[in-house]
Amino acid sequence: MVDHLLIRAAFRQPVERTPVWMMRQAGRYLPEYRAVRDRADFLTMCKTPELAAEVSLQPLEQVDVDAVIFFSDILTMLEPMGLELTFGAGEGPRFPHPVRSVADIDRLSVIDPADRLAFVGETLRLCRQRIAGRVPLLGFTGAPYTLATYAVEGCTGKNFHHIKRWYYREPETLHRLLAKIADQVTVYLNYQIENGAQAVQLFDTWAGALAPADYREIAAPYTRRVIEGLKRAGVPVILYINGGGHLLDEMATLGADVLSLDWRTDMAAARRKYGATHGLQGNLDPCALYGTEASIRREVQRVLDAAGPVGHIFNLGHGILPDVPVANARALIRAVKELGQHRP
Amino acid sequence: MVDHLLIRAAFRQPVERTPVWMMRQAGRYLPEYRAVRDRADFLTMCKTPELAAEVSLQPLEQVDVDAVIFFSDILTMLEPMGLELTFGAGEGPRFPHPVRSVADIDRLSVIDPADRLAFVGETLRLCRQRIAGRVPLLGFTGAPYTLATYAVEGCTGKNFHHIKRWYYREPETLHRLLAKIADQVTVYLNYQIENGAQAVQLFDTWAGALAPADYREIAAPYTRRVIEGLKRAGVPVILYINGGGHLLDEMATLGADVLSLDWRTDMAAARRKYGATHGLQGNLDPCALYGTEASIRREVQRVLDAAGPVGHIFNLGHGILPDVPVANARALIRAVKELGQHRP
Repeated sequence: MVDHLLIRAAFRQPVERTPVWMMRQAGRYLPEYRAVRDRADFLTMCKTPELAAEVSLQPLEQVDVDAVIFFSDILTMLEPMGLELTFGAGEGPRFPHPVRSVADIDRLSVIDPADRLAFVGETLRLCRQRIAGRVPLLGFTGAPYTLATYAVEGCTGKNFHHIKRWYYREPETLHRLLAKIADQVTVYLNYQIENGAQAVQLFDTWAGALAPADYREIAAPYTRRVIEGLKRAGVPVILYINGGGHLLDEMATLGADVLSLDWRTDMAAARRKYGATHGLQGNLDPCALYGTEASIRREVQRVLDAAGPVGHIFNLGHGILPDVPVANARALIRAVKELGQHRP
Repeated sequence: MVDHLLIRAAFRQPVERTPVWMMRQAGRYLPEYRAVRDRADFLTMCKTPELAAEVSLQPLEQVDVDAVIFFSDILTMLEPMGLELTFGAGEGPRFPHPVRSVADIDRLSVIDPADRLAFVGETLRLCRQRIAGRVPLLGFTGAPYTLATYAVEGCTGKNFHHIKRWYYREPETLHRLLAKIADQVTVYLNYQIENGAQAVQLFDTWAGALAPADYREIAAPYTRRVIEGLKRAGVPVILYINGGGHLLDEMATLGADVLSLDWRTDMAAARRKYGATHGLQGNLDPCALYGTEASIRREVQRVLDAAGPVGHIFNLGHGILPDVPVANARALIRAVKELGQHRP
């Protein structure tokens, strides 16, 4: 059996067409998603396999993407480790009791996902069943540095007061936290793979705020450790850092199969530099979906031209925005499927 | 008379010591600033020359920086053009009636700053008087693209829904707005220079969210037009884009004397590429000021080593954070003054 387009593209094998999916594709721009969201809050959706599987499949049914990513959050993993997580109305995630001391770190446990995150395994199995082989199923979580940032800061912020205090004042404390989180990320992604994930993506949301030297010091070693620990025969690993264009040299050393580029990064330059060793994912500006069908086709063509036919997974450079008309999301997928055909 | 350190460094002339100032140096981390802010709201401070000059001088008196930047906002210029501006408590700036149509653009006027922004001229003259030649006085405003983004979106946002709609759907409307704003920026900066500004900095806050091709299309031409229109014999122009490391090639073509780097940008690489043609400003991570005196000295040394002795203005890579201890700001300035000495 021939592998899915996305899996082949991830490993830089020939494909007859560039595969396409969208970060945050199970999201508010879809009326069908909003209908489910009206009945259940975000965390309930994540933790109820029936609901999570339903919204995971919506982009396949409604927009015809080439991959399903299971519905969850990059932070899901932290709660069972011992960090209470809340999502207030209209707010981002909050940890009311953030990690602020060595004792706080030592209170966190590396848990068995089969025990405390069984809803994730069940969601993945349901998704695989309903996808019925049409497209691959993607797993994901936050990367260690991003998870540590949320755990320490307690909320989405821009100043990184607490984690940077540790970095400059007691780096060993920060490394203690990162090591524990990296262990949990490894176990958690392996659990996702065992339960049906056919590719996994690490989102290092906050790492883009790091200078290259700092990324090498506190983020890269733990992402590398995670990737080395994955049981991943045939399961590609995708690494994404929003605002990470300045970190590609470092990202390319960590063992990931695919580097996922944000929209500010020059795809043609990245292909010249990393195209022989890595698949590349991305990188249409999410705001391009505010355009017309004609402008969307033009922008899609630009990305396809820059990326070339081999080793490219088409995606947005960041998550799809909630106020995008669903017709424009469909126009994007149609455009890639039409313009991204390659002669054998 | 020999020029100030900062002016010489901007023009890549020899200096006996690297000059240093901090973006947002007249700000909340200073108890003296908070004392003034307790008596007056932000806009009142900007518009009252006595108060604006008082807080502008505080970093010179309290922290001993090598330049004074007059207290104002990057958006100050938009209000007299016809855009009502408010700062809610704890909020960012808001334009309750944003620009959403050609008619809205045509209602904006390019005004004479001597008439409608006389408080800025008065503030600059007061600052010059009180500085009494100790250090140079800097002027500034937002760059056209950033001002247009605020004018169209109406508030600080991350999605850029309206401006990107114009970009993809009716680019001529966006160019019409940008041209008008660029004319006003030029007139406004010339007014600042006439009233005592000895160097000027353009802040292109939102341009960092643009891909290089988009920056070339909608931001670069208007920044270039502004710089070409400045009456600036001996007045260096500094161009700063937060998150603009991927735009340096473009920024280097616009006529600015100094490229100001954010903390994520590799200073040594930038120096190799642009050091022969441009001064470089930056680029300590603002979070480094959460560290200890020893860690601050270490980080200062790293930046100095990367930047070299010629053509470097030491600064943070972004504005100083409000929760930084003032002792750490002093430690930073002391460290640069001690470690940044150069043999003649």
